[in-house]
Amino acid sequence: MEFTINQIAGMLKGEVQGDGNLKINMLGKIQDAKQGQIAFLANPKYEQFIYTTLASAVIVKKDFQAKKEILTTLILVDDPYTSFTLLLEEYHKAINFQKIGVEEPSFISKNVTVGKNIYRGAFSYIGHNVAIGDNVKIYPHVFIGDNVIIGNNTILHANVKLYADTKVGNNCVIHSGTVIGSDGFGFAPQDDGSYKTIPQLGNVIIEDNVAIGANTVIDCATLYGDSTIIRQGVKLDNLIQVAHNVEIGKNTVIAAQTGISGSSKVGENNMIGGQVGIAGHLVIANNTGIGAQAGIGKSIKEEGSRIIGSPAFDVKEYFKAYAVFKRLPDLNERLRELERKMHQLNGSLESEIEKMEDEE
Amino acid sequence: MEFTINQIAGMLKGEVQGDGNLKINMLGKIQDAKQGQIAFLANPKYEQFIYTTLASAVIVKKDFQAKKEILTTLILVDDPYTSFTLLLEEYHKAINFQKIGVEEPSFISKNVTVGKNIYRGAFSYIGHNVAIGDNVKIYPHVFIGDNVIIGNNTILHANVKLYADTKVGNNCVIHSGTVIGSDGFGFAPQDDGSYKTIPQLGNVIIEDNVAIGANTVIDCATLYGDSTIIRQGVKLDNLIQVAHNVEIGKNTVIAAQTGISGSSKVGENNMIGGQVGIAGHLVIANNTGIGAQAGIGKSIKEEGSRIIGSPAFDVKEYFKAYAVFKRLPDLNERLRELERKMHQLNGSLESEIEKMEDEE
Amino acid sequence: MEFTINQIAGMLKGEVQGDGNLKINMLGKIQDAKQGQIAFLANPKYEQFIYTTLASAVIVKKDFQAKKEILTTLILVDDPYTSFTLLLEEYHKAINFQKIGVEEPSFISKNVTVGKNIYRGAFSYIGHNVAIGDNVKIYPHVFIGDNVIIGNNTILHANVKLYADTKVGNNCVIHSGTVIGSDGFGFAPQDDGSYKTIPQLGNVIIEDNVAIGANTVIDCATLYGDSTIIRQGVKLDNLIQVAHNVEIGKNTVIAAQTGISGSSKVGENNMIGGQVGIAGHLVIANNTGIGAQAGIGKSIKEEGSRIIGSPAFDVKEYFKAYAVFKRLPDLNERLRELERKMHQLNGSLESEIEKMEDEE
Repeated sequence: MEFTINQIAGMLKGEVQGDGNLKINMLGKIQDAKQGQIAFLANPKYEQFIYTTLASAVIVKKDFQAKKEILTTLILVDDPYTSFTLLLEEYHKAINFQKIGVEEPSFISKNVTVGKNIYRGAFSYIGHNVAIGDNVKIYPHVFIGDNVIIGNNTILHANVKLYADTKVGNNCVIHSGTVIGSDGFGFAPQDDGSYKTIPQLGNVIIEDNVAIGANTVIDCATLYGDSTIIRQGVKLDNLIQVAHNVEIGKNTVIAAQTGISGSSKVGENNMIGGQVGIAGHLVIANNTGIGAQAGIGKSIKEEGSRIIGSPAFDVKEYFKAYAVFKRLPDLNERLRELERKMHQLNGSLESEIEKMEDEE
Repeated sequence: MEFTINQIAGMLKGEVQGDGNLKINMLGKIQDAKQGQIAFLANPKYEQFIYTTLASAVIVKKDFQAKKEILTTLILVDDPYTSFTLLLEEYHKAINFQKIGVEEPSFISKNVTVGKNIYRGAFSYIGHNVAIGDNVKIYPHVFIGDNVIIGNNTILHANVKLYADTKVGNNCVIHSGTVIGSDGFGFAPQDDGSYKTIPQLGNVIIEDNVAIGANTVIDCATLYGDSTIIRQGVKLDNLIQVAHNVEIGKNTVIAAQTGISGSSKVGENNMIGGQVGIAGHLVIANNTGIGAQAGIGKSIKEEGSRIIGSPAFDVKEYFKAYAVFKRLPDLNERLRELERKMHQLNGSLESEIEKMEDEE
Repeated sequence: MEFTINQIAGMLKGEVQGDGNLKINMLGKIQDAKQGQIAFLANPKYEQFIYTTLASAVIVKKDFQAKKEILTTLILVDDPYTSFTLLLEEYHKAINFQKIGVEEPSFISKNVTVGKNIYRGAFSYIGHNVAIGDNVKIYPHVFIGDNVIIGNNTILHANVKLYADTKVGNNCVIHSGTVIGSDGFGFAPQDDGSYKTIPQLGNVIIEDNVAIGANTVIDCATLYGDSTIIRQGVKLDNLIQVAHNVEIGKNTVIAAQTGISGSSKVGENNMIGGQVGIAGHLVIANNTGIGAQAGIGKSIKEEGSRIIGSPAFDVKEYFKAYAVFKRLPDLNERLRELERKMHQLNGSLESEIEKMEDEE
């Protein structure tokens, strides 16, 4: 991909200062960009680099006042960061959606509906009665089980596995190695100490605009007709565990290695840190913030809570308690000292009193 | 799959009340089942739904006494939950074992023995000298290394990876993305600060009736002839780490994201929560219960222990200690207050005593 | 593979005592080795077995003095453990590098450079403009994205996934299911509570002699030209999360299920336990030791620190504090008792003083 600076400026609705006919083939950082690259200047502390950068173009704020001579071409915009992000996004889209067509060998069953501009990588597998929307990108080694439905513009990276009956919405991205729809962890104890597997017949529903990292696992619901549900706009990081019948509310963001146990309902717009554990059958209110490594053992009813610890409670209270925890040996010593003094005091007081009583 | 109610009643040894010729093609929940579905009523709090359900049949207890008119067909049994579970199981089996035959392209090496009613999905790979029992289901993208042995009725979901020399028993289920037999984490420190890899030559043995979730990892043993062993009836959830030379005892159940370090022996019938960490070279007694996020730093010798915390100790003691932990800032304040009082007291006592002594 | 004892002794520069023409086809442990196997004796507590072992040969220390008759052939060396390790290593190399050639079907794009003695397993996928060195072993189901560069003698086990632009050095081993180069977790909050994906355009660089376990994830850097970097000699265990723009220093060893958040720089020669969490944008000094399940919330500036806890602090201090934590209910009781006594004391003192004052 190669564009002229003028073309890029047009896309960003910016004004060109300098040679707009130069060609750009890459994005870069202002401090180490090379010829042919475009960078941006948003943070004033990087201003020094605009005078020395080798970038062919730099996106700057409209009212930028140069203090020295500038050799690179400028694109003047309202908000350089937003413009650069837009550019990154276009670039990303260009990369992610450029793959089109079918690589062989690939496997596609009967009764499969497929939209326009699909990419089906080599060794990808599509089961029976699958329906796939437009612009879907199915990378190599992806497994799509029977009866799966996938919306438009969704990207399944190499080796994503969708078990039978999974539904994925529009504009989703799922990264490599992630498993969706595996059996929930349900076992009924038997009299001899062994366990009987409770068959897992539900599915997983992933709504629109969901992003899921790599090697994450989302189990299906237990009963037929039930679903584990990831609501629209949810962002899940890598290596996350989402158990059967969990529901994660709109626009909730969860960091890596967190686990949510069966049947818990996580509210909307939560921010959940990494390595958090949430027990089963809980309800977490909207707008809850949960700190890294927290253990959630009971439902969070109040919206806007900020909690941490295992079991978790209010963040500020936790850190106050933890500050004292670190000094516990000292507290213990002080307590012992007080006991010693109390003992002495009682002794001396008693003896004083005795003495006084004797004197009386 | 479609059965008449009479056929299902026969399977469950139940008695039909109503039209037994209706056809059932699906299982459902009593509160939202539709025509053609069969549901069950075990919990009395759902009784209201039996009078309004659209389910074509409901499984109820033999002695069920209707309080209103019932429109659906009933199947009367001894224990509705058990009967429904049996049905779910049959249904599940029907689904899981229905796939038969070989999809192409698939890869099978020389000297491979394969039983009856096998399914080998497209892009599955079978190495040299592999022996596979009857009714084994090998989903797409499964990798089976050289010399692997697999028993009867075992299901390997899409993309399971079995390294060379792994042994898997009968009636096992392993979910997508799980890796069995990868190298243990063994490195010998060298004088220059670098590490030399200690070759890992042992294998993994998985006994009968073991269930393993998705994206779990079980490393092989270090020395040739040694094995990491998962005993019969063990149930492992998703994203679990089982290090080299670990042994997990019969019917032990382990929740997601737990990790067991090298050479530890976990007893039988343990219940281990999620995100637990167990250090290396430990022995965990039978019937131990370990709470979520616990850290186990030493062996558990007493059977029936219930522990939590990091490092873990008795659950009840932990929660008592944690209750005080939450009030530590208050304790600290009270301690300070006592010190203040003690100081005052000592002062006033001294002055009193001085006064008294002066008076004497 | 079969060697005579004389051949093995030659490789180890050891001296043969007994029949050097016997053939060895396997390594074993002295206590249960069988005919045709070779074992070693390093730890004196295993000496008893040298008199009864069925091993065809045992590697012992030069100055070993037998107390009874020995039936097996001995190989006398300076350091039996090192010699045995060398043998294990040769054996391992023989196993790992024995696979050569291309299994079909496999997929290889245009403009791919491939070295000598390559193994490309069935269903492996190689994208455009990839460069692969000599002796590289690419197991089945491996995915290698466009523009990836791989050095010599590197092993990619079944189903490793390398996203586009990843660089892997020489002598690396990456285990099954590991994902390298997936998108970092970057989302910009929007006014309506939703998030916009920040495109991730950087890559991952893995230097020489790096070992990575199974189902681990390493995200790519955010900006084009930036890299998440794993320095030479680093050893990563299974199920580890390495976020975007992280750098892990030379010869650092990290145990399973640990997570490192975005942009943190981990020093050289660190030893990091399992299930550790490291927050974003931190710097961890060289030679830091971090205990299992620790939570690192701020940079570690002092080299040689040993820390644990969440948030982590000095190991010794932590365990002292934790010892008191376990007795917190007792401390609380003692505190209450002191308060009671103080109250009494104040009361009795006051009454004494009042009495005395009355008497005056």
